[in-house]
Amino acid sequence: MNKYDALKEEAFAANKQLPALGLVLFTFGNASAVDRREGVFAIKPSGIAYEKLTPDQMVIVDFEARVVDGTLRPSSDTKTHAVLYKEWEGIGGIAHTHSTYATAWAQAVQDIPILGTTHADHLTTDIPCAPPMKDEYIHDDYEYMTGYQIVEELRERQWSYKEVEMILVGSHAPFTWGTTVQKAVYNSAVLESIARMAWLTLQIRPGVPSMKDTLIQKHYERKHGEGRYYGNEEFKF
Amino acid sequence: MNKYDALKEEAFAANKQLPALGLVLFTFGNASAVDRREGVFAIKPSGIAYEKLTPDQMVIVDFEARVVDGTLRPSSDTKTHAVLYKEWEGIGGIAHTHSTYATAWAQAVQDIPILGTTHADHLTTDIPCAPPMKDEYIHDDYEYMTGYQIVEELRERQWSYKEVEMILVGSHAPFTWGTTVQKAVYNSAVLESIARMAWLTLQIRPGVPSMKDTLIQKHYERKHGEGRYYGNEEFKF
Amino acid sequence: MNKYDALKEEAFAANKQLPALGLVLFTFGNASAVDRREGVFAIKPSGIAYEKLTPDQMVIVDFEARVVDGTLRPSSDTKTHAVLYKEWEGIGGIAHTHSTYATAWAQAVQDIPILGTTHADHLTTDIPCAPPMKDEYIHDDYEYMTGYQIVEELRERQWSYKEVEMILVGSHAPFTWGTTVQKAVYNSAVLESIARMAWLTLQIRPGVPSMKDTLIQKHYERKHGEGRYYGNEEFKF
Amino acid sequence: MNKYDALKEEAFAANKQLPALGLVLFTFGNASAVDRREGVFAIKPSGIAYEKLTPDQMVIVDFEARVVDGTLRPSSDTKTHAVLYKEWEGIGGIAHTHSTYATAWAQAVQDIPILGTTHADHLTTDIPCAPPMKDEYIHDDYEYMTGYQIVEELRERQWSYKEVEMILVGSHAPFTWGTTVQKAVYNSAVLESIARMAWLTLQIRPGVPSMKDTLIQKHYERKHGEGRYYGNEEFKF
Repeated sequence: MNKYDALKEEAFAANKQLPALGLVLFTFGNASAVDRREGVFAIKPSGIAYEKLTPDQMVIVDFEARVVDGTLRPSSDTKTHAVLYKEWEGIGGIAHTHSTYATAWAQAVQDIPILGTTHADHLTTDIPCAPPMKDEYIHDDYEYMTGYQIVEELRERQWSYKEVEMILVGSHAPFTWGTTVQKAVYNSAVLESIARMAWLTLQIRPGVPSMKDTLIQKHYERKHGEGRYYGNEEFKF
Repeated sequence: MNKYDALKEEAFAANKQLPALGLVLFTFGNASAVDRREGVFAIKPSGIAYEKLTPDQMVIVDFEARVVDGTLRPSSDTKTHAVLYKEWEGIGGIAHTHSTYATAWAQAVQDIPILGTTHADHLTTDIPCAPPMKDEYIHDDYEYMTGYQIVEELRERQWSYKEVEMILVGSHAPFTWGTTVQKAVYNSAVLESIARMAWLTLQIRPGVPSMKDTLIQKHYERKHGEGRYYGNEEFKF
Repeated sequence: MNKYDALKEEAFAANKQLPALGLVLFTFGNASAVDRREGVFAIKPSGIAYEKLTPDQMVIVDFEARVVDGTLRPSSDTKTHAVLYKEWEGIGGIAHTHSTYATAWAQAVQDIPILGTTHADHLTTDIPCAPPMKDEYIHDDYEYMTGYQIVEELRERQWSYKEVEMILVGSHAPFTWGTTVQKAVYNSAVLESIARMAWLTLQIRPGVPSMKDTLIQKHYERKHGEGRYYGNEEFKF
Repeated sequence: MNKYDALKEEAFAANKQLPALGLVLFTFGNASAVDRREGVFAIKPSGIAYEKLTPDQMVIVDFEARVVDGTLRPSSDTKTHAVLYKEWEGIGGIAHTHSTYATAWAQAVQDIPILGTTHADHLTTDIPCAPPMKDEYIHDDYEYMTGYQIVEELRERQWSYKEVEMILVGSHAPFTWGTTVQKAVYNSAVLESIARMAWLTLQIRPGVPSMKDTLIQKHYERKHGEGRYYGNEEFKF
């Protein structure tokens, strides 16, 4: 037994969900779960195929991205996760994929416009795309700066990470987060679905305007507002 | 045993068909089955994942959307279903999904043009898209007004709900219905297939005209007309 | 036992392949196999779901589309099959689907241009699309005329049904055939693949020219010419 | 037992991966594994369906494409493989598919531009597309010349086969290779994913520029450079 077993199991289960939801090919993605009391998180080891992954392979890392427990090298994106956990105290998990449609929007370096209730059920803004990183940051400490770039992008837009739980990094791919790692993975799948439908919509009608604001607010409020009436509490995650 | 067990079982089976047919992600859809003699319908509970759904979780609701039986909160779209059952006495079931291609057309706020016999085998008109709802209705009683918006849209076009069993709600997603809930779910899958093929056709040839009217009538009549010769009676549903 | 058991079994197996290859939704397709000595063919009954289909449900029909054996109504497209068997003595089977990409080209009423070796491995011409039927023929005997329309289209282009084993019927969907029903079903899957790749190619590069003729001839000849060297004889069908 | 059993087994397993990864329909693909000491490679027999393939059916061929062991005719693309093994001493395996998106780019006769990190994780250049072959080469010894055409294309661009492990042959389809046949098959799947995302990206934003060079170098170096920190050595293949 290991004091991190439960955390590793949680991160492992979330990582296994990524290929099951059709969000990753081979090793192109990772998820992590945090333990706030211990100040560490469990993350997928780097470059291991999902079908061979086991819970004990998860690597325990602190918020400076130093390995605390585990024998394998952690995901190459570990520093990005570490920055987000350090900066955003309210998040419990993070997921990163190269899912097809979300990545295509990231490669186009474009925000995903808010076009329908599937989107508005989850957030009230466009899905932001951060511009590709400045050269000095790439040369500096790339994965670490990717984390700060994400934090900065939301700050500049004055959007809260508690309301906008997903972002595209330009020329790269999406990152998502949430109060738990299950929610982060859920958000990765929701993002992919929204990205695909927005893509299709714009092919039908280029330049389609965003949906009306009253409808955005209505859908978001019924699911997240004070008087929310979507879902059944005991089944929420 | 419960007097609503058969109705719950019927609604449950139809709801389970939605993910099996690739029409819903997570909890983004619902189906209901009506019992006209009892004046109630069985509908999916709100926000429950399909893989964990059980027949006894189905909620029994009357046509004013008041819960008659069941411990869970019913789907947030329950009032929409209630309105349709009250207004349209000939329907036995309703399905709602956020299926990919149909939702993209709804987000583009465009009717799906009738381009081929797959479409004409099921209806002789374009598939209607109702415009996004007026602000006063959104603020009023949103899901209730969604039902009335659907009823109004068909009435204004002077189309019968018995011939046009599917609609898109602008900036939202599709609703379908039928004489049974199985037929409603079948219509959701047919709509998604038609929506996908129409999308592809317009990419190949923008501005393609609708198919010729004689062919529309021929295909619809051979399946639905008095002298119909499609199908085998004992296998119809 | 029934003298048509083997023929029914052959047609049944081919019909079951259609959904397995992702080519049909619900009941939207059919395949038939001919017995030239008996002058009959076995075809799917009309409107029966593939998952409930059994070999004994296959209907035996002669070349005038009269039922010879079986209790169910045959496919509504039976007359089309009958015409093709009567007109083309060299074919052993026919398949009809509403497969997504091939149907989109049919709805666009456009030939599928020959753009690569996947296409040239199977035929040296564009995949023809017959124009939608004249009104007088639709009113006359629709399915019967569909068969003659297919035969006429090839005749007008002076193409042999032995070399071009697939066609699109405008505003409708594809038909394929071959020396056996297995080959006809194989052709339906090949056509869908070619239709999809041609669609994608034209999205990348609108107006792309056809591939060069020397390459078309080379690929077709290595698989079908006198000196063919593709495949292993004992594994051919 | 046969001295080539292990080689045949390796080639067989790689061939079976192709349909499992969704890269081939029917018989439209092949993979081979080389034994440098023996100067031979094992390749799929021509025209055999993947579901019926067995390890002992693999054909052993030398670098002049002469059959050394096996009773079946080898893949019609055998000479192409032979040329690549002879010209490039550092490769251990080759794969050829007609995968959907990569083939669409080949049919468009266009290089796949480098638009994101999924691409840059694997190579730093666009994915090259060789132009369709000259008539005199097609008439000469087609499959043999296809191999030389691939070698020439990289040579003219002054790109190393050790860094660029994939190519499109215009009007035809992709070829990939690697230090092992497993890596060659992996590259076929990566190529298909990159081809699909590039296609989508260009639909969102026609004329999108390539990603910035500093980001290309960073991603390639972290996976392939001297100071690489991606992956865990014992899990590499």
